[in-house]
Amino acid sequence: MHNGERGDPGRGVGKRMAMIDFQTDPSRYRHWRIECDGDVAYLIMDVDPAGGLSEGYELKLNSYDLGVDIELNDAVQRLRFEHPEVRAVVIKSGKDNVFCAGANIRMLGKATHGHKVNFCKFTNETRLAIEDASENSRQTYICAINGNAAGGGYELALAAEHIMLVDDRRSAVALPETPLLAVLPGTGGLTRVTDKRKVRRDRADVFCSIEEGIRGTKAVQWRLVDEVVPNSKWNDTVAARAKEIAARSDRPADAKGIALTPLARTIAADRVSYSHVDVEIDRARSLANVTVRGPAAAVPDSLAAAHALGDKFWPLTVARELEDAILHLRSNEPAIAVVLLRTDGQAQAVLAHDEFLAKAKGDWLMREIRHYLKRVFKRVDVTPKSFIALIEPGSCFAGTLLELAFAADRSLMLIGTREGDNRAPAALTLGQANFGWYPMGNGLTRLQTRFLGEPEALEAAKEKIGVALEGEEAEELGLVTMAYEDFDWDDELRVMLEERASFSPDALTGMEANLRFGGPETMETKIFGRLTAWQNWIFQRPNAIGEQGALKLYGTGVSPTYNKERV
Amino acid sequence: MHNGERGDPGRGVGKRMAMIDFQTDPSRYRHWRIECDGDVAYLIMDVDPAGGLSEGYELKLNSYDLGVDIELNDAVQRLRFEHPEVRAVVIKSGKDNVFCAGANIRMLGKATHGHKVNFCKFTNETRLAIEDASENSRQTYICAINGNAAGGGYELALAAEHIMLVDDRRSAVALPETPLLAVLPGTGGLTRVTDKRKVRRDRADVFCSIEEGIRGTKAVQWRLVDEVVPNSKWNDTVAARAKEIAARSDRPADAKGIALTPLARTIAADRVSYSHVDVEIDRARSLANVTVRGPAAAVPDSLAAAHALGDKFWPLTVARELEDAILHLRSNEPAIAVVLLRTDGQAQAVLAHDEFLAKAKGDWLMREIRHYLKRVFKRVDVTPKSFIALIEPGSCFAGTLLELAFAADRSLMLIGTREGDNRAPAALTLGQANFGWYPMGNGLTRLQTRFLGEPEALEAAKEKIGVALEGEEAEELGLVTMAYEDFDWDDELRVMLEERASFSPDALTGMEANLRFGGPETMETKIFGRLTAWQNWIFQRPNAIGEQGALKLYGTGVSPTYNKERV
Repeated sequence: MHNGERGDPGRGVGKRMAMIDFQTDPSRYRHWRIECDGDVAYLIMDVDPAGGLSEGYELKLNSYDLGVDIELNDAVQRLRFEHPEVRAVVIKSGKDNVFCAGANIRMLGKATHGHKVNFCKFTNETRLAIEDASENSRQTYICAINGNAAGGGYELALAAEHIMLVDDRRSAVALPETPLLAVLPGTGGLTRVTDKRKVRRDRADVFCSIEEGIRGTKAVQWRLVDEVVPNSKWNDTVAARAKEIAARSDRPADAKGIALTPLARTIAADRVSYSHVDVEIDRARSLANVTVRGPAAAVPDSLAAAHALGDKFWPLTVARELEDAILHLRSNEPAIAVVLLRTDGQAQAVLAHDEFLAKAKGDWLMREIRHYLKRVFKRVDVTPKSFIALIEPGSCFAGTLLELAFAADRSLMLIGTREGDNRAPAALTLGQANFGWYPMGNGLTRLQTRFLGEPEALEAAKEKIGVALEGEEAEELGLVTMAYEDFDWDDELRVMLEERASFSPDALTGMEANLRFGGPETMETKIFGRLTAWQNWIFQRPNAIGEQGALKLYGTGVSPTYNKERV
Repeated sequence: MHNGERGDPGRGVGKRMAMIDFQTDPSRYRHWRIECDGDVAYLIMDVDPAGGLSEGYELKLNSYDLGVDIELNDAVQRLRFEHPEVRAVVIKSGKDNVFCAGANIRMLGKATHGHKVNFCKFTNETRLAIEDASENSRQTYICAINGNAAGGGYELALAAEHIMLVDDRRSAVALPETPLLAVLPGTGGLTRVTDKRKVRRDRADVFCSIEEGIRGTKAVQWRLVDEVVPNSKWNDTVAARAKEIAARSDRPADAKGIALTPLARTIAADRVSYSHVDVEIDRARSLANVTVRGPAAAVPDSLAAAHALGDKFWPLTVARELEDAILHLRSNEPAIAVVLLRTDGQAQAVLAHDEFLAKAKGDWLMREIRHYLKRVFKRVDVTPKSFIALIEPGSCFAGTLLELAFAADRSLMLIGTREGDNRAPAALTLGQANFGWYPMGNGLTRLQTRFLGEPEALEAAKEKIGVALEGEEAEELGLVTMAYEDFDWDDELRVMLEERASFSPDALTGMEANLRFGGPETMETKIFGRLTAWQNWIFQRPNAIGEQGALKLYGTGVSPTYNKERV
């Protein structure tokens, strides 16, 4: 029994909180503004202290909670899709004298373990999405630190490619988590300091121990920021730097963005339905049945027609809906342990859309869509649920949708047909999309990761691109975990699910977090592996979360009492 | 307050346990035997059920605790130093029908969190030492699994380069931690399955879910073992395989080993003294003062003379003593947060010994000594204490001993001399040893890791090899964290130590585990990063360690009750 969490069905901050909705749009933002100036956008953080996602804390000093980050994530997405003309994005504060004080400590102090973990995961994904925009959309982020940037504030800056700090003899960058809060700078902070900024490790140690942080030229010398700018030249220099960086982008000059309109979504007690994705909750078995539907329409006649479809273009629709479904399951359905992934539709229609994306790969929007799908699949990789793909007659696991089966912990495929079902035998079809479009965080494709020990299997798979592969052949090629005939299917699946449901959810989370990431590690996987795992450990330690721990006592004036044992 | 640990000064299994001694020798082994047969050694595991390190559990079925692993570690060391003629080592069980049942669960169920963490760290280091012997001593390990190998038993096998499994229709390999115990195969198991054996990730998921494991040809097909051998041909095939593998080694045919004699060590309440290392505990300040002394004697006249010195040859003496001191601090002094590292002696004497090692690098013993020093420095890298190197007049931070300063979290150097001290100014001297002899687990030298962002600083350092560098120059070159003059020294150090002592020990452990490992990750660093951090998280979760958790209830016949939330 720990911290009253056991048996507490609620999540988040406080005993229960309303459903967390990851959908928003600028008209509803309470914490961010986007101001466009030609090819430069200013993304302005101006947190409403009264706008917390739940009660019991005030978002002072531009501190943030999950709600603030949901808006940031939305803004980063929209800048990519709705503003092709924007080539540089400047993150800055809308408040005087403070850039951002980081994650709200009172919120963290009250949050359940599950909420803390989920919050950190989402904020990490958002920062990685910022880096993805800089690298792959050539919409380069600059951070203009006009005031103190502490903890998560500096971690936000670290996601930018160029960090500017005002030299006003006050403003500093800091990672005060260890001295102040007994936790880590866990939103990528420690990893980006050593691996992105490449700060010398002993200096990083000093920096992470100084509550008040480091400012001025020393911050440049220590590689913590890229430049410091006198107050008097601040606005001009920031604007000039943004223009300079914008000039290096390959984004089109006169393209027109597409609108990300509200999702077609209905939420019921045990079901969330979208236009092409269904989530059906089976609480008795701790299961979610997720079905992704293939395209209902043919591919557009032309690139212009695809642009005209906007967010109704199938690959984009499915990316948005699947992402929302995954985030919903993570945050709002903690008791769901297993996700059964199914697809429904015509494999050829999926492959035709892939082909369309491939042909139009020079187009900015098609590029965005592919990178978006990549990020959605990455969300699956770090989702703490067991994913099992079920490949049955009527499914369309082909190309982009087949990637779901490769993201799953296991895949089961039916051999042939079902009695009384006159559809064609279950089949899967490899496409070019499975060989490079969707790298995992470790830099490899899911097939490369799958065949780490058998590179020849990867070559054999490549030769089957476009071929509808039935159960036995798919199993032989190593593309599915198991293939069963109809008369074994139900029993095998039932036993597997009962078994999975009987295991400790924590052991499964840890096991999956290891087995999913064989092979190389990158800065991205280090953030979700090394850094996050240590942070989650600390989030269970009394020194952080106990009644006398630092998170609980922060702001009370009482100093925490630590158990001094070094573990 | 968690599990009664808070405020409990004892460590290990049960409320208090005797000091853990990492020194042993074959005459005292209770659990292992070494049988040599020419160039092949058999390392036979035959655990004495009554020989547990503490009371309250029986080591049934070749299950192990830290005491069993201390013997294994000792055996692995001695095989390298005492048996140059041994070119292949076969690990097998001395019991019928069981190879090894893994870590003893009753022991884990009773152990404090600190002991669990320490136990896993040491067993991980031992398995890495086995791999180091195969790779760098060409004393190649083979595992002959003659009976069930479950959990830690299979993880031990995974450390070998060649795994043989008897095909008797019973013996299997298994990682049943997740289904049975709600924890991970944390002694490298998950990482070696995906990254060393390169088992397909979905098969790894299946394998880690099957209590009874996998046997026979399927174990080969799934890459879990290298070969299965019928019972009738077992002994002959194992012997033949060992001879084959031995024949590939470059170890000398007729060399004579050296004896690893008992350490010259005296232990008092607040002090551990060795011939060249002193550990002085300052409990009031949670500090350990560790002083390493340089060579008292000149380098030997010849290689033969160095061999004749045996374990009295200074580099080997210092490796053994420093290793024991580190292990002692980890296991027996959990309340010590900071280690001040000092050296005492002549830099030229240290460098002369390095030079001797370099010239004799073709010699098997000199090679062993260098690899041993490498492993000792790696133990520092994963020790959860803050290391601060103090470079003062009279010190000998040069070459091999300078590596200690690069392993430290920070280094402080005195500028010039102390008032009233007529010794030469403090200096440090780079040697060839700092540029490749002692790679960290991440595959880089400590200087490469230090200068990830400034490769030109690495080049500049290389040009200073052999030059005694005083404080200001060393600071300028980026080789020390800070350099202070005499009149600032005491205050700066005092403030730093007070500050460090005020931080949460857990946050420091997590922070150091991140900052020390910038740059690439390897299988080795993944084991200590990703895998260990997740395991430590699980070791804090009620589903594993609560009163209704799996570790507590194992063997009682009562099933654990899990909180079903997926985090």
